[in-house]
Amino acid sequence: MATKKIAVIVTNGVEDIELVEPRQALVDAGYQPILIGEQAGQLIYGKKGTTFKLDQGIDDVVATDYQALFIPGGYSPDHLRADPRFVDFTSEFMEKRRPVFAICHGPQLFITAGLAHGKKMTAYQTVQADLQYAGADVTDQAVVEDGPLITSRNPHDIPQFNAAIVKYLKTIPAT
Amino acid sequence: MATKKIAVIVTNGVEDIELVEPRQALVDAGYQPILIGEQAGQLIYGKKGTTFKLDQGIDDVVATDYQALFIPGGYSPDHLRADPRFVDFTSEFMEKRRPVFAICHGPQLFITAGLAHGKKMTAYQTVQADLQYAGADVTDQAVVEDGPLITSRNPHDIPQFNAAIVKYLKTIPAT
Repeated sequence: MATKKIAVIVTNGVEDIELVEPRQALVDAGYQPILIGEQAGQLIYGKKGTTFKLDQGIDDVVATDYQALFIPGGYSPDHLRADPRFVDFTSEFMEKRRPVFAICHGPQLFITAGLAHGKKMTAYQTVQADLQYAGADVTDQAVVEDGPLITSRNPHDIPQFNAAIVKYLKTIPAT
Repeated sequence: MATKKIAVIVTNGVEDIELVEPRQALVDAGYQPILIGEQAGQLIYGKKGTTFKLDQGIDDVVATDYQALFIPGGYSPDHLRADPRFVDFTSEFMEKRRPVFAICHGPQLFITAGLAHGKKMTAYQTVQADLQYAGADVTDQAVVEDGPLITSRNPHDIPQFNAAIVKYLKTIPAT
């Protein structure tokens, strides 16, 4: 049977609700979101002050142990993309066309990874221009699905984003 | 005689030191940095907690009243570029090749303004890729000068950035 683990890469400044609500939706659907950041056990803080405890450090994880990658937004993605380990981890999912879910500023990782080109996606309003210049096919709508790549714009899109990612995961056959 | 006013566009989440130190350098050189944001009198807060009081609201200012534009970094520029008034204000300086000084995430405004193409600049590490895709000629060095456009990467570059912007301003003849 396929792993139910979902890799969530995150650090300080995450948009709290964009981590809390999709994480809950994944748990409710029977998946195990694993928070991956600098170091296992580390506490990180959301923009609005929520405290999150990291489950795993980036040096201790292997992409193939996870069924999908989820990148919540806020200030977190721009911090993560300054560290090649998180960019490489993202690339491992993107290059093999494995499931990647990103909301708000999450798609900034795709630009640094050099993998935005030609892909259909959306993102936070200000990041849309960056993605267009990077060659992405950007649409300003609540959810954009390009096969296993599912993206949304902001906290208002969370209900539709959650529905889309859970629905997509359900299509993956048990192995 | 030319105005000594320097427009500083800024909002919450500014990288404190990137506002504090260049502002002081401008004051020491005889210029008047004017903090422009959402509304005159409003208090804004830096990433590190510094409180700043805005001098002017964006609706009450005219670009030609200022000798130069300065955009400090941090999270502030990404917030500003979500508001077309700040993008337009930036464009007014850029399009007329009037002095524009930006550090760290400041150059994000140039992408949204559609005016990065062909210009020599630098920026915060993560923003350099965004600028390259937007057609800028990006160099990873402490200060990049492209005529009246002067850019730097991060807080470590502040001493060289301050020296460069003050030196440039001194070249502008009194009118």
